[in-house]
Amino acid sequence: MSHNTFGHLFRVTTWGESHGPALGCVVDGTPPGLPVDAARIQHWLDKRKPGQSKYTTQRREADEVKILSGVFEGRSTGTPISLMIENTDQRSRDYGEIAKAFRPGHADYTYWAKYGIRDYRGGGRSSARETAARVAAGAIARDILHGVTIKGALVQMGSDAVDRAAWSWEETENNPFWCPDATATTRWADMLDRLRKDGNSVGAVIEIVASGVPAGWGAPVYGKLDADLAAAMMSINAVKGVEIGAGMAAAALTGTQNADEMRMGQDGKPIFLSNQAGGILGGISSGQDIVVRFAVKPTSSILTPRRTVTVTGEETEIVTKGRHDPCVGIRAVPVGEAMMACVLADHFLRHRGQVGQGSL
Amino acid sequence: MSHNTFGHLFRVTTWGESHGPALGCVVDGTPPGLPVDAARIQHWLDKRKPGQSKYTTQRREADEVKILSGVFEGRSTGTPISLMIENTDQRSRDYGEIAKAFRPGHADYTYWAKYGIRDYRGGGRSSARETAARVAAGAIARDILHGVTIKGALVQMGSDAVDRAAWSWEETENNPFWCPDATATTRWADMLDRLRKDGNSVGAVIEIVASGVPAGWGAPVYGKLDADLAAAMMSINAVKGVEIGAGMAAAALTGTQNADEMRMGQDGKPIFLSNQAGGILGGISSGQDIVVRFAVKPTSSILTPRRTVTVTGEETEIVTKGRHDPCVGIRAVPVGEAMMACVLADHFLRHRGQVGQGSL
Amino acid sequence: MSHNTFGHLFRVTTWGESHGPALGCVVDGTPPGLPVDAARIQHWLDKRKPGQSKYTTQRREADEVKILSGVFEGRSTGTPISLMIENTDQRSRDYGEIAKAFRPGHADYTYWAKYGIRDYRGGGRSSARETAARVAAGAIARDILHGVTIKGALVQMGSDAVDRAAWSWEETENNPFWCPDATATTRWADMLDRLRKDGNSVGAVIEIVASGVPAGWGAPVYGKLDADLAAAMMSINAVKGVEIGAGMAAAALTGTQNADEMRMGQDGKPIFLSNQAGGILGGISSGQDIVVRFAVKPTSSILTPRRTVTVTGEETEIVTKGRHDPCVGIRAVPVGEAMMACVLADHFLRHRGQVGQGSL
Amino acid sequence: MSHNTFGHLFRVTTWGESHGPALGCVVDGTPPGLPVDAARIQHWLDKRKPGQSKYTTQRREADEVKILSGVFEGRSTGTPISLMIENTDQRSRDYGEIAKAFRPGHADYTYWAKYGIRDYRGGGRSSARETAARVAAGAIARDILHGVTIKGALVQMGSDAVDRAAWSWEETENNPFWCPDATATTRWADMLDRLRKDGNSVGAVIEIVASGVPAGWGAPVYGKLDADLAAAMMSINAVKGVEIGAGMAAAALTGTQNADEMRMGQDGKPIFLSNQAGGILGGISSGQDIVVRFAVKPTSSILTPRRTVTVTGEETEIVTKGRHDPCVGIRAVPVGEAMMACVLADHFLRHRGQVGQGSL
Repeated sequence: MSHNTFGHLFRVTTWGESHGPALGCVVDGTPPGLPVDAARIQHWLDKRKPGQSKYTTQRREADEVKILSGVFEGRSTGTPISLMIENTDQRSRDYGEIAKAFRPGHADYTYWAKYGIRDYRGGGRSSARETAARVAAGAIARDILHGVTIKGALVQMGSDAVDRAAWSWEETENNPFWCPDATATTRWADMLDRLRKDGNSVGAVIEIVASGVPAGWGAPVYGKLDADLAAAMMSINAVKGVEIGAGMAAAALTGTQNADEMRMGQDGKPIFLSNQAGGILGGISSGQDIVVRFAVKPTSSILTPRRTVTVTGEETEIVTKGRHDPCVGIRAVPVGEAMMACVLADHFLRHRGQVGQGSL
Repeated sequence: MSHNTFGHLFRVTTWGESHGPALGCVVDGTPPGLPVDAARIQHWLDKRKPGQSKYTTQRREADEVKILSGVFEGRSTGTPISLMIENTDQRSRDYGEIAKAFRPGHADYTYWAKYGIRDYRGGGRSSARETAARVAAGAIARDILHGVTIKGALVQMGSDAVDRAAWSWEETENNPFWCPDATATTRWADMLDRLRKDGNSVGAVIEIVASGVPAGWGAPVYGKLDADLAAAMMSINAVKGVEIGAGMAAAALTGTQNADEMRMGQDGKPIFLSNQAGGILGGISSGQDIVVRFAVKPTSSILTPRRTVTVTGEETEIVTKGRHDPCVGIRAVPVGEAMMACVLADHFLRHRGQVGQGSL
Repeated sequence: MSHNTFGHLFRVTTWGESHGPALGCVVDGTPPGLPVDAARIQHWLDKRKPGQSKYTTQRREADEVKILSGVFEGRSTGTPISLMIENTDQRSRDYGEIAKAFRPGHADYTYWAKYGIRDYRGGGRSSARETAARVAAGAIARDILHGVTIKGALVQMGSDAVDRAAWSWEETENNPFWCPDATATTRWADMLDRLRKDGNSVGAVIEIVASGVPAGWGAPVYGKLDADLAAAMMSINAVKGVEIGAGMAAAALTGTQNADEMRMGQDGKPIFLSNQAGGILGGISSGQDIVVRFAVKPTSSILTPRRTVTVTGEETEIVTKGRHDPCVGIRAVPVGEAMMACVLADHFLRHRGQVGQGSL
Repeated sequence: MSHNTFGHLFRVTTWGESHGPALGCVVDGTPPGLPVDAARIQHWLDKRKPGQSKYTTQRREADEVKILSGVFEGRSTGTPISLMIENTDQRSRDYGEIAKAFRPGHADYTYWAKYGIRDYRGGGRSSARETAARVAAGAIARDILHGVTIKGALVQMGSDAVDRAAWSWEETENNPFWCPDATATTRWADMLDRLRKDGNSVGAVIEIVASGVPAGWGAPVYGKLDADLAAAMMSINAVKGVEIGAGMAAAALTGTQNADEMRMGQDGKPIFLSNQAGGILGGISSGQDIVVRFAVKPTSSILTPRRTVTVTGEETEIVTKGRHDPCVGIRAVPVGEAMMACVLADHFLRHRGQVGQGSL
């Protein structure tokens, strides 16, 4: 991962700002012959689209993707696939306040400190609108990964976690939070109503699970599958922590609790009696489910006044009006899925390059 | 990060196995004219060296570094610096058992699944001995970072965390755990004695802090400083989670608690009233302390029998004899410091390349 | 250089096919604060534009560039600059013949052999239309290179070379060939008229010169400035040879003839008494003019029937109708200039990153 | 190619100076299970070794390679292979003169201009001794390329070219020049005797041919096989020009002469009636022989006095004593072969990664 590109063989370069004419990505290294059309990509973009429930930003973007290259007669040609999403609802408004002062918790100050210039409109390049391009790229990545299923869920909002005993993947499709626990849904809806009334926001934890990944993807020791996943998830806006398998809780385990014991499965492959490892050992997939979690901090754009300073060095207070998600973690679910797909597609191709297993 | 290389402008390639003749690294991109000698590197290697207390592996390695290139009359020439550490205490023994069966929690099975061949002696490439090369590279990185101080501490062993009110960086030098809280030290010593007696092991959490990093290092959106730190820490053996600033706990915060408010400092630079962000906003350093934490799982090599399978598909039990750390997290402290140094050195050079600030 | 991206710190990713809706590039790593607007880029694109004289293809493309990101209030922000050029004159016609048979000298067969699918319309990705994106990126690169002047000329058409004693850079602007020797111009015009009548085409040699490059850019030993220039020029469509300084003729020199002797200049810097080295020694610029030449093969699309085979394995003959340049070398001049600019911009930033000279 | 590393999936990092304790390389990305032992590598190193005839430097180096990692029981494990060659004949001598003055034609001045420090002993990092590491890496690359044969020859010394009608690959093994034309051998021997007497040197042209490369390796448009070959050859010390197929002479051809016509072969694959393309079309291999030529300038270290300047700015003359090759082009033959092997191995793995053809 470097600058605005990630991946080695399956490689994605994104571009665009929140309030520019468009945003998009160039997806390079796609195997040829893959079915690619706008509808397949749109399916996943719609999942991330703003304005779909009262719990996400009311900005209205169609997020309609256009394929500009790399596809011929409905199939990938192996050359770069350029995808573009035009911005249509950059609401015309007065940027005076955020042009002059740095919003706490945002990248306003650091962009300015680094570059000496910043596109302050809607956060410019640091806006989460950039993640639409990731989702579009992820849609292509999914189609490379025959036999692999990638699913995501919101497992904690604020300090309220789901009951894992009540987990249902189907349930994630039935509520606006991608919550796998039906009983948590109503509590979370109440929480968000209350926070919105208070002009406040809240953080969340997302879990992404990839099933069907064969043993052997990943590479020692700086191309570890978990290292790439950690970078991929940490690169998503507002993420502050990433866990694989047992994650931070691994610290509290003993060796006997932690190491996943093995027996022989009926198909001649080992089976593991637990999955503390999250499907990755020594940076290489073990054949178990790949389990990644990440924490998203609360939206920094809130209606409660916060102390800050201006570009010219005066102390002031700022209130960030606008159409903001009270819990940006919700829309991070499809983004996390997309990043999982992109990392896995890249590692599948890298593995096939070095070791030569021709197909999944 | 790819294969066995990490970094872009400051670039480190490591090589070597636990029981081969030597291990080492090639450090490329070092600015010219930097004082480099074996003693400066040895200082940091000695900190990581095994066999220094009864709480770490009793393998006796001098870990003496040799400089093979890139240095002339005591200074870096700007060309690749090759460092080599010879293995001297690969105890001659019978590898029969681990040659035949996969140790649970180790990379034995995944290496075999990927490559169809593995150097099983001491874990081969997946051994934590590789981290000596990181520490050597980190020693050079530190010298590039004028004005930056990097310190590490063990902040939790098992479920027993330090009292942050009692934090003393000086104290980390006074005990074999790099523990910043003197009162925790005795509790931890007891814990390890007990675990060792039980043939068991335990995990830990390490915290690395870099002070003096100016605002502006890092790059959107896939070259984020925190994304690179996440990959760097996750690439260390046995790490299962990485946090920046508030980390996973950010999920439980509200927007008013989380966003670090700003006032003007006397030096004309903003000061932050808290550091939930861990010194990074939008992937770019803010001028605050960079704070990273990571969890290390318990040593998988334990004397308690574990169920596993053999290379030929039989079910069996395995006991991993040998000279193992009951808490590998302890020796991960200098490794985490080294990775912080390497990532920062790379980002310093990348920032200087794009934006041109000639010196720290 | 890898896939569809080149450069390390100044990094260009291009996309698009000859007959798709558009083509373009993403320029990443541009220093912030640089004046960037469509008109500055258009200036260079117009130089490469087809249909400007009777000696180049009569395809009519406005080649109008749109800036989609990375620029705010007329200045670069340091984030990726996305440039798009819409295709407007993809003449509707019957592709039946080239869909079925491989045109000799073109990439038709190799794309098909590699990917099993190809966009045959106008050559798809292998069309020289891709070079419009390079010229657009080169326009930005030039603005990074304060004090550096990059000029190109056609120095040989067929076997007819210019008279170097008659060299005039001004003259290159006065004829449709970028020819620096006024007397060669009429000969070349006659040659092209004759070739066109014969349904034939011809090759050419282009020379690109960069003045004002300070000593010190480039890097041993695989980041050599000349190695990167060689790759950059060889990546241009139809290029079959690249020379630096004396080039292939260096083989026939003796040591006394070849090594450029040095004296002291009045400004305290060495001056060289000749420039056989083409401004590069050991992969690093010497402060002299950087001189690169490359040979472009004759256009393979000709009206003379050529023997070939079809996708289904039959032998046949093909005549490539359409609007083709009788000497593609002509329009390669601005492309070569652009590649020189991009390579130098990248090396300037890389040099500044490692060594820290803050400005040109 | 960047800094001291080249390749993407098959990746080589070299290190070491002419007069340091050792030099070597780290070869990363080797497929697992490949037979690798010191003898196989030594075979190719011996071909490049100095002091083998009176026409190459009399420096006596055993160039004995040691394998430090990545190999287990005689086979590659897929982890980095570290190779080391100790320097044994760094003749103790007075470096006073070249420490103070810049040798014309060498990298002395440019290294000093870039870094402000240089290891002047024997040219330091810019010495052709570095190419031993390339040859060692190339030995491994060859073994990855089942079915591919790579051969090299010196085809021109000074202005005296071989007679292609008299070409014999066997003959290249019978003379100290790798000359394929027995009649040229005696002329060249005379030429070198004369030049040595005159304290002079001469350039050369080398041709490298790879047979058996299947159609489909390479990638548009910045990962073109010919672009990577151009960079690889230009990165070899003293190379000033690189040609593919017809090379610079392509400029003088017409379209009818240049485009290689195709017929159907008996094996169902197309055959080409000529090979002006040098086996590469659109950056992708066509199945024909890959033909690359490069020009090596005459050795700059000569006994004839040359005008130069000193580090402190005085004008002076310099005579480069020592044990130098009168025609460095001779020993460039095995180096060019090695670079061809490394580039092809990398492209084989990259192709297999994207397109999935599991084996050669």
